Amino acid sequence: MSRLLLNCDIGESFGNWTMGLDAEVMPFIDCANVACGFHAGDPSIMRKTVSLALKHGVQVGAHPAYQDLQGFGRRSMAYTPQEIQDLLHYQIGALDGICRAQGARVSYVKPHGAMYNDMMANPAQLRAVIQAIAAYGDLPLMLLATRDNSAAQALGDEYGVTLWFEAFADRAYDNKGHLVSRQLPGAVHHDADTIVQQALTLSRGEALTASDGSPLLLHANTLCVHGDNASSIAAVQRIREALKPA
Amino acid sequence: MSRLLLNCDIGESFGNWTMGLDAEVMPFIDCANVACGFHAGDPSIMRKTVSLALKHGVQVGAHPAYQDLQGFGRRSMAYTPQEIQDLLHYQIGALDGICRAQGARVSYVKPHGAMYNDMMANPAQLRAVIQAIAAYGDLPLMLLATRDNSAAQALGDEYGVTLWFEAFADRAYDNKGHLVSRQLPGAVHHDADTIVQQALTLSRGEALTASDGSPLLLHANTLCVHGDNASSIAAVQRIREALKPA
Amino acid sequence: MSRLLLNCDIGESFGNWTMGLDAEVMPFIDCANVACGFHAGDPSIMRKTVSLALKHGVQVGAHPAYQDLQGFGRRSMAYTPQEIQDLLHYQIGALDGICRAQGARVSYVKPHGAMYNDMMANPAQLRAVIQAIAAYGDLPLMLLATRDNSAAQALGDEYGVTLWFEAFADRAYDNKGHLVSRQLPGAVHHDADTIVQQALTLSRGEALTASDGSPLLLHANTLCVHGDNASSIAAVQRIREALKPA
Amino acid sequence: MSRLLLNCDIGESFGNWTMGLDAEVMPFIDCANVACGFHAGDPSIMRKTVSLALKHGVQVGAHPAYQDLQGFGRRSMAYTPQEIQDLLHYQIGALDGICRAQGARVSYVKPHGAMYNDMMANPAQLRAVIQAIAAYGDLPLMLLATRDNSAAQALGDEYGVTLWFEAFADRAYDNKGHLVSRQLPGAVHHDADTIVQQALTLSRGEALTASDGSPLLLHANTLCVHGDNASSIAAVQRIREALKPA
Repeated sequence: MSRLLLNCDIGESFGNWTMGLDAEVMPFIDCANVACGFHAGDPSIMRKTVSLALKHGVQVGAHPAYQDLQGFGRRSMAYTPQEIQDLLHYQIGALDGICRAQGARVSYVKPHGAMYNDMMANPAQLRAVIQAIAAYGDLPLMLLATRDNSAAQALGDEYGVTLWFEAFADRAYDNKGHLVSRQLPGAVHHDADTIVQQALTLSRGEALTASDGSPLLLHANTLCVHGDNASSIAAVQRIREALKPA
Repeated sequence: MSRLLLNCDIGESFGNWTMGLDAEVMPFIDCANVACGFHAGDPSIMRKTVSLALKHGVQVGAHPAYQDLQGFGRRSMAYTPQEIQDLLHYQIGALDGICRAQGARVSYVKPHGAMYNDMMANPAQLRAVIQAIAAYGDLPLMLLATRDNSAAQALGDEYGVTLWFEAFADRAYDNKGHLVSRQLPGAVHHDADTIVQQALTLSRGEALTASDGSPLLLHANTLCVHGDNASSIAAVQRIREALKPA
Repeated sequence: MSRLLLNCDIGESFGNWTMGLDAEVMPFIDCANVACGFHAGDPSIMRKTVSLALKHGVQVGAHPAYQDLQGFGRRSMAYTPQEIQDLLHYQIGALDGICRAQGARVSYVKPHGAMYNDMMANPAQLRAVIQAIAAYGDLPLMLLATRDNSAAQALGDEYGVTLWFEAFADRAYDNKGHLVSRQLPGAVHHDADTIVQQALTLSRGEALTASDGSPLLLHANTLCVHGDNASSIAAVQRIREALKPA
Repeated sequence: MSRLLLNCDIGESFGNWTMGLDAEVMPFIDCANVACGFHAGDPSIMRKTVSLALKHGVQVGAHPAYQDLQGFGRRSMAYTPQEIQDLLHYQIGALDGICRAQGARVSYVKPHGAMYNDMMANPAQLRAVIQAIAAYGDLPLMLLATRDNSAAQALGDEYGVTLWFEAFADRAYDNKGHLVSRQLPGAVHHDADTIVQQALTLSRGEALTASDGSPLLLHANTLCVHGDNASSIAAVQRIREALKPA
């Protein structure tokens, strides 16, 4: 995987509630992180989402989460490592079932929200996630690129799980390669030129400038983009255009 | 499948709540109908249940249901045929995910409770179930043997889905081959000799006596047994013994 | 209650999902039917909704439903009459708890979706609803005005429950005073003049014209209006203006 | 409240799943901590539980929890203080609704599981709980007696909320008056004589012996007892007998 793939959280509607402009963003992305019913998505939403992804030749990834519809999977919960593995097998399998009925399969896994953050902060949880994916089958795990991916990479190698590191074009990084908290000023880039420039820098394998002014080199395989609203979709289109092979 | 397989609803605990004597009944059955999280079962219960089934060489079947934990999937709900299909793909896939992590796969599907009853009462819903299973892959559907299985069989043939008809050794039948309602006297056999005798009669392909005294010939591939309590497990053991090949 | 009150379904967001323009419609209504967590609404949404209603001097009504988030409470479910009563006490109480914390109380009850439709179609269920409300305390029940309200009124009188009959300004009626099914052409009025005219006719106690051309006199205490989108809110404003006391 | 009241977690069944021997323990307790549907209990279970409590003249307390049926409310979740307050108002109100329908009212509040532990560990959360109860109305809060209750008492005084401190007869304490973790040996007393003796010591206002051998004086208003199984009920009976006024 040499080109920087674009991945996007998708299928986050639920029942009668709609969220995100899935149909609008799908033509511009490579990988759809599809909600699996625990933080968003229900079996019927999932079917429609998978169908839309397949129509656009987009890879379907499982986007599993803690079981917390009200909190949208964003509240940390004290699961045991075994429970995390069970949650993952259930949700990846459920999305795989929806995919199979359309002649497709889940292609990768990207945990959502608090499960993602806790996995990045807690090595025991990252191990549980990687073990779960290894036991399920031959799927890559998408996780956050940081200044030093070596600990995660060692875990992936130990279990034979391919890792896809993701970076953000619209977020500021600190000098460890962690995302600057959304509570802080300057954490999120709103200017489209800045966003496209950061995407290009990442794509060329060049260093970003961290929030303290130091250079930050991130090794990323994929870029996380957003389909929330018209302006984020405009940004995705511009990134897609900018990253086109010459 | 010439021998009468014994199938049993299994894995109907949830979180901290325990139901059924799964470990006690598992050694005596062939097919475990495993709850998939919508009426009972949660991802961790499902893992333990699949593990127990595999230990005893028991086939793992998906036992999907309407989404109704409080009602244990026994309350009819007005789902559309498309929603039924989505529910099935989600739940079969979820259990398949749990199985895959243990090197196994789901072997068949038996809808639970109100979904089962509605499927038997409503041809459009039976069609939806069969379509869903056909789209998922190569799994048999377990459903109720009645006096005349031909309409169901025609639907199965139309979609290329194998049907496994099940009968009950502990229930009285009316002359159409439907189960006598539990509201009526004599609906459930409690005497172990009567239960074993009915199992043997079904196994030999001989006619039962319906509630109106008429002979009733049921063509069944499998017998539904119960692991609720000590006496039902004693009955399963006796049935197992009685049905042993000579 | 001589003036025709305006009631509106409100608070139907859930977690991160938003539905309806609650802040926009609240200034123009008298009664807010607040979702109680079973089809929509969560404890935090409910707090915000009650706060908004109180700010505008709008009465807070409980809008209880079957427990079906995915189906938005619109799918019929086979509850027993006793279960219906339990559901009502739980949900009315929950909203009352949210109200008490703001120094207010629930003022009336209007069942939602399938619970409302089943109550209008099934006298045993209407009785269960009325019994439940009588047992809870001194709250009126909002239900559909039809050509002949006498059977409902007799039940209300039997249990000492005040009934508030509601009519619709934007829906066509058949000659029994039932709403024409949304599946049929002409079921919903989209023209604002027609809607305002129907509101005025209802307000004056004059007969509407049913779908078969016959006159239809509805005795209604309240008019159901909608805050779904900008055009429905424009209609509410015009109705509010038209119904102003001279 | 001079006598040591006996409180017990009650109504922790859900749907078809049964937990605890509620009918057996109810005759021997003063205060029933009734699950409110978020970790256990459903509207119908709650009705039966309240009815049983009233039959035995037992006070009904709300036992609210985080929304986590699978985890039985025992997994910590990252709620905001405002969300905690909303959860409490919803659940106290829901149980109050069930009570009102039987001519009764909720008498006090005792948070469950992780909500209880987090409240004891985190002053901001204790403040949120006390604020919520103050806003709801005139209900006491039940919480853990420790060596020094003064910080909690100051918060209770600030909001005008009565505090009922509870102690355990069957648990070992460390020298700060915290419960010894169940992971450690000797954390739970299984010998009935030891349990009854600890109850008597607490009742007389005398010092217990902490796990390090030091004396530990706990000021408690109520004793938490258990109705899980036959032996815990036998212990409750013996405690009840031992605490009888001479």
